[in-house]
Amino acid sequence: MTDSPTLALAKDLISRQSVTPEDAGCQEVMIKRLEALGFEIEVMVFEDTTNFWARRGTEAPLFTFAGHTDVVPAGNLDHWHTSPFEPTVIDGYLHGRGAADMKGSLASMVVAVEQFIANNPAHKGSIAFLITSDEEGPFINGTTRVVDALIARNEIIDMCIVAEPSSTHAVGDVVKNGRRGSITGDLKVKGTQGHVAYPHLANNPVHQSLPALAELAATKWDDGNAFFPPTSFQIPNLHSGTGASNVIPGEFDVQFNFRFSTELTDTEIKRRVHSILDAHGLDYELNWTLSGQPFLTDEGKLLEAVVKAVEDVNHKKPELLTTGGTSDARFIAPMSKNTEVVELGPVNATIHKVNECVSISDLEKLTDMLEKTLENLLLENGLG
Amino acid sequence: MTDSPTLALAKDLISRQSVTPEDAGCQEVMIKRLEALGFEIEVMVFEDTTNFWARRGTEAPLFTFAGHTDVVPAGNLDHWHTSPFEPTVIDGYLHGRGAADMKGSLASMVVAVEQFIANNPAHKGSIAFLITSDEEGPFINGTTRVVDALIARNEIIDMCIVAEPSSTHAVGDVVKNGRRGSITGDLKVKGTQGHVAYPHLANNPVHQSLPALAELAATKWDDGNAFFPPTSFQIPNLHSGTGASNVIPGEFDVQFNFRFSTELTDTEIKRRVHSILDAHGLDYELNWTLSGQPFLTDEGKLLEAVVKAVEDVNHKKPELLTTGGTSDARFIAPMSKNTEVVELGPVNATIHKVNECVSISDLEKLTDMLEKTLENLLLENGLG
Repeated sequence: MTDSPTLALAKDLISRQSVTPEDAGCQEVMIKRLEALGFEIEVMVFEDTTNFWARRGTEAPLFTFAGHTDVVPAGNLDHWHTSPFEPTVIDGYLHGRGAADMKGSLASMVVAVEQFIANNPAHKGSIAFLITSDEEGPFINGTTRVVDALIARNEIIDMCIVAEPSSTHAVGDVVKNGRRGSITGDLKVKGTQGHVAYPHLANNPVHQSLPALAELAATKWDDGNAFFPPTSFQIPNLHSGTGASNVIPGEFDVQFNFRFSTELTDTEIKRRVHSILDAHGLDYELNWTLSGQPFLTDEGKLLEAVVKAVEDVNHKKPELLTTGGTSDARFIAPMSKNTEVVELGPVNATIHKVNECVSISDLEKLTDMLEKTLENLLLENGLG
Repeated sequence: MTDSPTLALAKDLISRQSVTPEDAGCQEVMIKRLEALGFEIEVMVFEDTTNFWARRGTEAPLFTFAGHTDVVPAGNLDHWHTSPFEPTVIDGYLHGRGAADMKGSLASMVVAVEQFIANNPAHKGSIAFLITSDEEGPFINGTTRVVDALIARNEIIDMCIVAEPSSTHAVGDVVKNGRRGSITGDLKVKGTQGHVAYPHLANNPVHQSLPALAELAATKWDDGNAFFPPTSFQIPNLHSGTGASNVIPGEFDVQFNFRFSTELTDTEIKRRVHSILDAHGLDYELNWTLSGQPFLTDEGKLLEAVVKAVEDVNHKKPELLTTGGTSDARFIAPMSKNTEVVELGPVNATIHKVNECVSISDLEKLTDMLEKTLENLLLENGLG
């Protein structure tokens, strides 16, 4: 039996060892397919990262598929049942690094567009691809820089599907229509080092900080809203001490991270944290790193089109969620007030793990869902 | 000018590189001097540690000088103005590792006994020396094992001077008539590791612990008493986290140390700590290390004799304090309910530092103070 177009392309991509920031020829494979469809290709290399922007058509709306060709490292090869860069089919599942995150999705995106254009060569609007090889890494020279270049020339994405693995048990059971924001604070509280036997000559920054940290951990930051769970505060790392049991430490390092809803802004979070630290009279330094603002696509043509496409294939509506980690969607969503972004992709159960795999029938369904989404949006008799 | 007996012996001892647990012949020098005075010598070697017990006389009371021949390492030689194991006199100060802690004191002890016996060969009671080479190290095979051996044969010390550097500005300005206890708790609080983006699937042990730790740090453990400052609680070390900012840690390690007065016992401290941890519902392991029980010599012949001797030399009463770190006195004080122990020695400003030194006139005064203490205690016309 010959492999379907989606499976064949997924295998080809998985066989290329594109560990971040390597692309290993994946983008060249995609570009050749898209050029054949009449896409105009723009390769954008920033530092060690290869990206490309491909567009077919000049009219609005500008619909975009976004994704990444890079994968996380294979991890311990002894724990893999198959060779991670030799795509292998076992019992209806395609195994290999990137099968679910997200080379299978890249194949579905390309094949969906091929099928859509074959049937509808004169579609409305424009179709684009925004592909990077730096999503799993520092995400400095990837999507964010392509977006900057597009904004600079006023080429604004109207609607975007990021085909990241959004699903829980079967493709399309979950569509992510937003993401929480993420901000990290690196706090250094200063005290005065000294001997444990002479506490009056020292000032233990741990003792000074405990009530403030307890208050931060106990604070209810918001109630979330219809689409977001309440903002969460977590302390992933903290450290103090010289290792000696008779020395009062002079510094206390605490790192905390917020995953925040659209009910809050990073500015408001910073204001409230500083207010609590200041109220406890701490002498501190605090450095913030904003990983991403929250975004929400709660209505509009894109969400309607995607939900209908999923329902057509699955005969069941997807659940709309904003849970989970961050993705490059956070860089695309702020392009304009009207930019709509959703994430729709395969089951994420095995991503970043050994023996990563994806259901082949889920990939075929994903191809169908993406093609139907294009039909819903870019045909005269579509939803639009 | 010829060196005084005290200065000459101090120099001899400093020139021997007796870094813990090495004795480097120091004890042999002392033993020869004591044998000449009629002391019976018992060398006690435990593992890597050389100790000796020397006693002159068989009658009560049993008065003992305790001390150690080992010293801490020299540290960075570039920062020493002199060679640390070449005793050097500069402007009335004897420089060298161990000058203040406590080879100068060993010299004063030996010379004081030589002078006392020369003048009073038929003194009352017994005089002993308990000398170890493991006071600065793990103190496992030193004083504590000699004490165990003495207790096993019911040879109980009645009065003891530990000639550790007790003084602040001049010899005898402070006599230590007790020491706080020290107990360390190593706490491991258990949670459930997870992804920061999915806090409902994890349980952050740091968050769980913060209110309990804040309560421990804010607790008033006692008010101290006339001789002891209030018991102090300090967190010298704590750590949690994998280093990644997106991982909720699964364990939290906290070390705390109590310096406690005679108003508390280690049993009571443990009970109260467990009570607080349990009240906060923590899942934890807690391992305790008792470094020493507190002791107090607040009345009795020894303290009276020492105070009078100091006053005779200095024309000023010493201050009685129980502050500061621990010493081997903690092992001797519990020998019996009636055992009296005090610490009297030179200024501690330079101990364990580079350029350790001691005032030569203070050493001569210390010799006088110790001799007068023997006179006060062991002569028919003394205080006793």
